Amino acid sequence: MRLAIVGASGAVGHELLSVLEKSNLRYDELRLYASPRSAGTTLECRGKKILVEVMPEGKIDADVILASAGGSISKSQAPIWVEGGAIVIDNSSAFRYDENIPLIVPEINGDVLEQHNWSKGGIVANPNCTTAVAVMALYPIHQKYGIKRAIISTYQATSGAGAKGMSELLEQTKNALENKPVTNEVFAHSIVFNVIPHIDSFQDNGYTKEEMKVAWETRKIMRAPNIKVSCTAVRIPTLRTHSEAITLELEKPAQPNDVRTLLETAPGVEVRDNPAEKLYPMPLTASGKNNVEVGRIRSSQVFDGGIDLFVAGDQLLKGAALNAVQIAEYMQQKGLIK
Amino acid sequence: MRLAIVGASGAVGHELLSVLEKSNLRYDELRLYASPRSAGTTLECRGKKILVEVMPEGKIDADVILASAGGSISKSQAPIWVEGGAIVIDNSSAFRYDENIPLIVPEINGDVLEQHNWSKGGIVANPNCTTAVAVMALYPIHQKYGIKRAIISTYQATSGAGAKGMSELLEQTKNALENKPVTNEVFAHSIVFNVIPHIDSFQDNGYTKEEMKVAWETRKIMRAPNIKVSCTAVRIPTLRTHSEAITLELEKPAQPNDVRTLLETAPGVEVRDNPAEKLYPMPLTASGKNNVEVGRIRSSQVFDGGIDLFVAGDQLLKGAALNAVQIAEYMQQKGLIK
Repeated sequence: MRLAIVGASGAVGHELLSVLEKSNLRYDELRLYASPRSAGTTLECRGKKILVEVMPEGKIDADVILASAGGSISKSQAPIWVEGGAIVIDNSSAFRYDENIPLIVPEINGDVLEQHNWSKGGIVANPNCTTAVAVMALYPIHQKYGIKRAIISTYQATSGAGAKGMSELLEQTKNALENKPVTNEVFAHSIVFNVIPHIDSFQDNGYTKEEMKVAWETRKIMRAPNIKVSCTAVRIPTLRTHSEAITLELEKPAQPNDVRTLLETAPGVEVRDNPAEKLYPMPLTASGKNNVEVGRIRSSQVFDGGIDLFVAGDQLLKGAALNAVQIAEYMQQKGLIK
Repeated sequence: MRLAIVGASGAVGHELLSVLEKSNLRYDELRLYASPRSAGTTLECRGKKILVEVMPEGKIDADVILASAGGSISKSQAPIWVEGGAIVIDNSSAFRYDENIPLIVPEINGDVLEQHNWSKGGIVANPNCTTAVAVMALYPIHQKYGIKRAIISTYQATSGAGAKGMSELLEQTKNALENKPVTNEVFAHSIVFNVIPHIDSFQDNGYTKEEMKVAWETRKIMRAPNIKVSCTAVRIPTLRTHSEAITLELEKPAQPNDVRTLLETAPGVEVRDNPAEKLYPMPLTASGKNNVEVGRIRSSQVFDGGIDLFVAGDQLLKGAALNAVQIAEYMQQKGLIK
């Protein structure tokens, strides 16, 4: 199996290599592609030094391509790569809302992949990072109790905007501490010691695209078209891991202890919920961790039988690189990759 | 009128002096009190240098005392000060939930003060900072549309824990940038580049006291005992200004444009809601500002006719010092202070 990573030098690309190190995914060849600016360096994976090449125009000789080079490259190139026979696992939002394209979190809807024929290639969409983190906690709850409404407020790290987002926060922080002027390029405003309720572009309904992605993708991944989701997506001055405060109205009333027990056996979830021991989800503990931390599980004050909870998940891992590799692993296990 | 500030050297004390500079509150004498550790310095207000004295044991010779030295001092001392004839405007939570003690945001329920006899002194409670910021936006909406449910997620600055909270963030940030070890005393965990869903102590119901304060105080201030409020209170690495993502279910359906128009004439509110121009509430713009910024006003995706919005208010001002001085101003205007 010939594997390729497009966007190998970015924040997600970096994590893809690190996830592949520990993954059981079998491949015979791994090639790394990036923009001309980043090509020419070498990166290491599984004991091998690999040259980062300039992404070719046209098709790429690979069976599986992990694409993480932004929406516009995916949009224009992925169809060409598929024509060449490749399976493209795409980290951008370019194809997520196409009803013919599977949008996959393997623990939740991996089976959807088996309904497609991949012998001539195709596109699998990797979800938005905020959504991927949220659904890990929401899906087990939805299966048992049925979610009617979800209100989600996010605390999103600067690495959600890639490595350059993290650099901007660090540079601004350094300057702020030295009382030097702070400039911004990646974010709409200065992010150091600030909060910006604006991620991705604004839609006509007053929500940002990021906020609507959480609604659209949650429904698609969980195959639950009737769940109502209101999201407020907020950038805060952290480096990695997205946190989310979630309030749920449920069809069947839930007790916090039962939800805790349920999530303790859920795949990809770590229940971290012991306030007396100061244990709850935080970027400090969730960063670098494959599992999504879930805690602050309590009876909602607004919905009878509803649940409030807090999650923190490394959005570069489950929200991006880890989930992409898990999709490839799932497809390989099911014999969907030639 | 003899005015005194207890806790003059703290973060709120500092703001009280700065608010008094611009206030019309008339007083003949201003005395400043602090702990023995902070006493002995001089602070300036209205062109006068004032010595910070050690807070006396027993009564204080003042007609109005602005108390901001923490809950335990207020709890033990305020009744003694009142015995001495003083009106105590208390910034702690010690008396807020006593049904005989008015909990006041002057723009909302200042009239409650007129139902009491202050000739022999008494206590007025100043609300929790998160609540004071939220109700500025919620009350006009409640009056016109009737709020049934409010889901509030907070983004709270380190100065909510006083000047020492800010210092801890700055110190940790400096150390983190230099890859030095980070220690924490004020907060339960390291706050630099982190998010801590834990403010004040945990209650039996799994909510923190901070979260329940928002529910209790919102109902008391707005005289709306039936509003359901679920809050998640989260500390983030900012210096000042609390932000809040709020989702509202309403009795009467609201249109975002009408809510915007309504809030544009609301006292103490600045509508900052033009996404196309990147205008929305943020600590960056709300810090140091008396008015609470309100924006991101949009139709809720979970409640028909409901509203989602985002607020940012300087919690040291409207959430503490400004509101306390406004209470004193209101009482003086109404002739309630001898």
